[in-house]
Amino acid sequence: MKTARDWGLVPTGMTPGAMNAMTDVPGIRVGHCDIRGPGLMTGVTAIVPHGKDIFRLRPRAAVEVINGFGKSTGLMQLAELGMIETPILLTNTFGVAACTETLIRRAIADNPQIGRDWSTVNALVCECNDGQINDIQALAVTPDHAGAALDAALDGRFMQGSRGAGSGMTAFGFKAGIGTASRCLQIGGGHVLAALVLANFGNAGDLILPDGRRPRPARRAEAERGSVIVVMATDLPLGDRQLQRVARRGAAGLARLGAFWGHGSGDIVLCFTTADPVVFPADADVVTQGRLSDEHIDLVFRAAAEATQEAVLNALCLAEPAQGRDGRIFPALPDWLKQNPLS
Amino acid sequence: MKTARDWGLVPTGMTPGAMNAMTDVPGIRVGHCDIRGPGLMTGVTAIVPHGKDIFRLRPRAAVEVINGFGKSTGLMQLAELGMIETPILLTNTFGVAACTETLIRRAIADNPQIGRDWSTVNALVCECNDGQINDIQALAVTPDHAGAALDAALDGRFMQGSRGAGSGMTAFGFKAGIGTASRCLQIGGGHVLAALVLANFGNAGDLILPDGRRPRPARRAEAERGSVIVVMATDLPLGDRQLQRVARRGAAGLARLGAFWGHGSGDIVLCFTTADPVVFPADADVVTQGRLSDEHIDLVFRAAAEATQEAVLNALCLAEPAQGRDGRIFPALPDWLKQNPLS
Amino acid sequence: MKTARDWGLVPTGMTPGAMNAMTDVPGIRVGHCDIRGPGLMTGVTAIVPHGKDIFRLRPRAAVEVINGFGKSTGLMQLAELGMIETPILLTNTFGVAACTETLIRRAIADNPQIGRDWSTVNALVCECNDGQINDIQALAVTPDHAGAALDAALDGRFMQGSRGAGSGMTAFGFKAGIGTASRCLQIGGGHVLAALVLANFGNAGDLILPDGRRPRPARRAEAERGSVIVVMATDLPLGDRQLQRVARRGAAGLARLGAFWGHGSGDIVLCFTTADPVVFPADADVVTQGRLSDEHIDLVFRAAAEATQEAVLNALCLAEPAQGRDGRIFPALPDWLKQNPLS
Amino acid sequence: MKTARDWGLVPTGMTPGAMNAMTDVPGIRVGHCDIRGPGLMTGVTAIVPHGKDIFRLRPRAAVEVINGFGKSTGLMQLAELGMIETPILLTNTFGVAACTETLIRRAIADNPQIGRDWSTVNALVCECNDGQINDIQALAVTPDHAGAALDAALDGRFMQGSRGAGSGMTAFGFKAGIGTASRCLQIGGGHVLAALVLANFGNAGDLILPDGRRPRPARRAEAERGSVIVVMATDLPLGDRQLQRVARRGAAGLARLGAFWGHGSGDIVLCFTTADPVVFPADADVVTQGRLSDEHIDLVFRAAAEATQEAVLNALCLAEPAQGRDGRIFPALPDWLKQNPLS
Repeated sequence: MKTARDWGLVPTGMTPGAMNAMTDVPGIRVGHCDIRGPGLMTGVTAIVPHGKDIFRLRPRAAVEVINGFGKSTGLMQLAELGMIETPILLTNTFGVAACTETLIRRAIADNPQIGRDWSTVNALVCECNDGQINDIQALAVTPDHAGAALDAALDGRFMQGSRGAGSGMTAFGFKAGIGTASRCLQIGGGHVLAALVLANFGNAGDLILPDGRRPRPARRAEAERGSVIVVMATDLPLGDRQLQRVARRGAAGLARLGAFWGHGSGDIVLCFTTADPVVFPADADVVTQGRLSDEHIDLVFRAAAEATQEAVLNALCLAEPAQGRDGRIFPALPDWLKQNPLS
Repeated sequence: MKTARDWGLVPTGMTPGAMNAMTDVPGIRVGHCDIRGPGLMTGVTAIVPHGKDIFRLRPRAAVEVINGFGKSTGLMQLAELGMIETPILLTNTFGVAACTETLIRRAIADNPQIGRDWSTVNALVCECNDGQINDIQALAVTPDHAGAALDAALDGRFMQGSRGAGSGMTAFGFKAGIGTASRCLQIGGGHVLAALVLANFGNAGDLILPDGRRPRPARRAEAERGSVIVVMATDLPLGDRQLQRVARRGAAGLARLGAFWGHGSGDIVLCFTTADPVVFPADADVVTQGRLSDEHIDLVFRAAAEATQEAVLNALCLAEPAQGRDGRIFPALPDWLKQNPLS
Repeated sequence: MKTARDWGLVPTGMTPGAMNAMTDVPGIRVGHCDIRGPGLMTGVTAIVPHGKDIFRLRPRAAVEVINGFGKSTGLMQLAELGMIETPILLTNTFGVAACTETLIRRAIADNPQIGRDWSTVNALVCECNDGQINDIQALAVTPDHAGAALDAALDGRFMQGSRGAGSGMTAFGFKAGIGTASRCLQIGGGHVLAALVLANFGNAGDLILPDGRRPRPARRAEAERGSVIVVMATDLPLGDRQLQRVARRGAAGLARLGAFWGHGSGDIVLCFTTADPVVFPADADVVTQGRLSDEHIDLVFRAAAEATQEAVLNALCLAEPAQGRDGRIFPALPDWLKQNPLS
Repeated sequence: MKTARDWGLVPTGMTPGAMNAMTDVPGIRVGHCDIRGPGLMTGVTAIVPHGKDIFRLRPRAAVEVINGFGKSTGLMQLAELGMIETPILLTNTFGVAACTETLIRRAIADNPQIGRDWSTVNALVCECNDGQINDIQALAVTPDHAGAALDAALDGRFMQGSRGAGSGMTAFGFKAGIGTASRCLQIGGGHVLAALVLANFGNAGDLILPDGRRPRPARRAEAERGSVIVVMATDLPLGDRQLQRVARRGAAGLARLGAFWGHGSGDIVLCFTTADPVVFPADADVVTQGRLSDEHIDLVFRAAAEATQEAVLNALCLAEPAQGRDGRIFPALPDWLKQNPLS
């Protein structure tokens, strides 16, 4: 299948990383678990920040709530402390509890002190509602599915489109799901910023391509009840405020696609760095951490907006058409692109 | 048992409501489900804002996160939209999922359109960690317990101290739990503001009584891993910003008790009004709502701080001593008060 | 001169108001004072929400800080109380104090109780740095200029481009300044939402036109040290949270133009409604206010993004080229459009 | 004169620094300029974080707006970037512009590139309204007064009470003004956290002493139109989020005194660290900064609440009585303490 870039849908001129993917950030792994069955088309996607115990080596992070119509879990504590304690799981709205259970059980298995000698663990699970395609009320996601996604996490290429949590997601009236992109940052010895999206947002007819075209699927516009989760990662050392400011720029990437962050859409951006994670329990009273000079932060802002935009375009380009629960088809964007060639 | 007021522990001079309780606000009901068993001392407390379908008649509300070390659910959407869609359940940290399930199931039972024709429902569950007394890893809270608390909700007097969610909670080294208080507001025809707390916060030795005494239990100070949930309600019409500002003043009530909102404590305040709830689905494009003049808001701020402070004192005065999981006793504040009479 | 719409630069399909301008909102007046002289090209623009005493009839409002690198004044109190107490003045960064003085003096002249029997007045002045064209260190803006802008405020058509505060502003490497646009809202008996921008942001080469073209002026890209102020107004009754959410969508309009809200740019959105202003001193303990149903809010979000985007395009299309202090020209966007016709 | 500690008004048990003052933090200097004349009793207080050029060596900082009814300047950019670029000046509400001018002029004198090759400078000036004693409409504060306060800044002991910006301030119906206190932090090689307050808040009758007594001056309670500015400083390395969380705990110190952060009061906390300031222009792409382990942060929280509380008590104990513009006296707290000895 062809990526957005293969279709000529290139936001602007920064250079993508080697795989143009979340896994360009060294150490990050991504895995899917697909759930299929009668009426079922859903799943779980896991983002594992590094290969060690996340609870004891916590990536510093920020969360930006663009529009808070959603049921993700773990965000309040992340906003307070600025670090993540578990892998990040993405799933459908009613799969949050199952994913949370797995994250807690695995953390306790690795660290039996949790909830006894230590505080409890803050599970991080984000969601979109795939109910237009998937029978979400079947509550198909189980803790085992969450575990399978975590176990499937690999550090190379991974499938985009209708995979894992993206299985039943749609955007702008087209089939969508998981997408990713990355940008090289020419700072210091070279770094990368990547975005992975769970794209399930945008009204039919609102999509704007980088070339200005506005693909309209053969579906009527409906009130948006979707959402979009953007997870950004980098190996660049960023401070707390910088992580927050970079996360906010994910909203710019979404807006360039034609979104206005609709009322019923839970639009959330997470941003974490793998640089200088927080050791728990602390091995020193005061630790030293790197922090980018603000004089270079515009480059990171630009990368954040671009990578988010291209990640959504990849989710749209790499998903196959699927039938909605109402019997009508959610087409694939490539079908529209083929029928509407640039002259 | 004697309330804080019976013990002479009176914050200041505003007049309490008829029962000095959350249920002084007309229509509000409170119910407990106690869970007891070997190693188990926990439960669920339900606050039901009014007698009709909450999903279709949504109280306007705000949330103030004083310190976000916690795992409550439903707060992000409440912060975005300013309204609540379900009763409020309080429980222990690992009981959140069970309570959430019950709220969702009951909402769907009343409104089968949820998640199909309409958006999903935002369950509101707040928690503290009662692991110092209760075997929290037993995961004793079930959806049935949540349902029992909801079914037990009555609009008159209700038990305070070691009841419902407060069963296994402690504060400042003493046994604590559920407490409540209210204040009359001499505005218009007369209104009331009430607070209900789930008190599980504060280091041993930090408690400050209104008369300046500092009761110290026979326990060593430990790093705070508790939390406190404050739920305020009023029948006074307040605007969105006003609800937020009133919620913030709950933090003043906690500080007067000696708290400094510790790092490991999830300190959260909800504030809702029963006036002019939002009808869903809307029956008009534009509705009219009452809004207090800001020139009177100081009276409400004062009531918020006072009611929160007295509610915690009631939780401390009305709880029986209990044995911690470490075998040592969490004493009751009244025992200290008896041994340390004011000369 | 031709507007963006005359050039075919139309964001999307909502219908503009009668004048496609801020003054489509009934009662709003806009006035400019231009300051010209050797090295001087700056000014003041006044937005007067209604014809009565603003201090005693306060429009409800919200402020969204997209990127807080700026020196505007009055925003903290606006964020706390949700209302504005003076007209809104726009000027250059070093003109804020002069404009503040005029707002305070006029408020005191109308209400001698200010600062004595009543609280002080919260002057609202927003700024961008026009130092690339104007000799900002000359401190050319005086209180009289601010007064002149207020006195010039009229409720019909007003000049866009290099007028008033927009005199010396640039955007995306082109000459820019003041722009405006509006959108009809088919709600109730019909309402309008309008935006007025002081556009001084965006790196050369980043501009994206609605048709996807990317005009690049003959200037090298420089680190952004500009800013953009977006003022939105509507006659639709909106609640506090709704005003905030609508303000936030101004950021989407900016992003669609290619901005990523740069580090050194003070990007601020104000949004106010002329419906149900707050009377001071209050004439009742509780007042009633209208509030739009959230089920219609997406229409307002869309209008906010579109009007902001088109207002900036108008600022770009209606400004004449000007010489920068470095001697090089900031071209007008129409010059580029003429040289790069759509085939 | 006797400090609060001399009067036995000791919040709790942490150990104060050597001088129990802001200047216990190495390098920090404090200076006053008193303005006196017919009807005039006001001034300026300067806090200078270190002896070098602040614009080029920027202390990292945070601001917590407890209640935003105020006209301080420079806070928005501080909130965005987390650093301060000038000394901090405190003055009366109408003196902000004069102080701002001096900060800008001095910054430009030291760095002529400001506003030309570099961005403009963000002046940081906080204010309270001393209009109950001082004829604030006389606009007595001039840029020279601001300069005099800066020039007077010394690194040893400084006067508290009715000095500098505190000249005309009152709190809880008593004469108040400038106060300070500090706490030793037994972390690493030893650090200190200090608070300096400009105390002008609290209704007559609301004050709570650490021993529980409630001094009531012979003045009737009035609607609060005061404010309080808390500036905290430490030499402990803290991260962005930690600075914010520490700042928030200033609100706890105020609440313990009986404040509920009144509607008309601008209650603001700044917190900065002298550790690892940000070099401008940057001398490296990535710098390393120290960051305290969160496992020790409760100690800093406690110090923040205590130092704030004691600083206000010092402002109250060290101010002389003064006559209000209404002819009635604002008594000194020591007068009440003498008349109401602890039996």
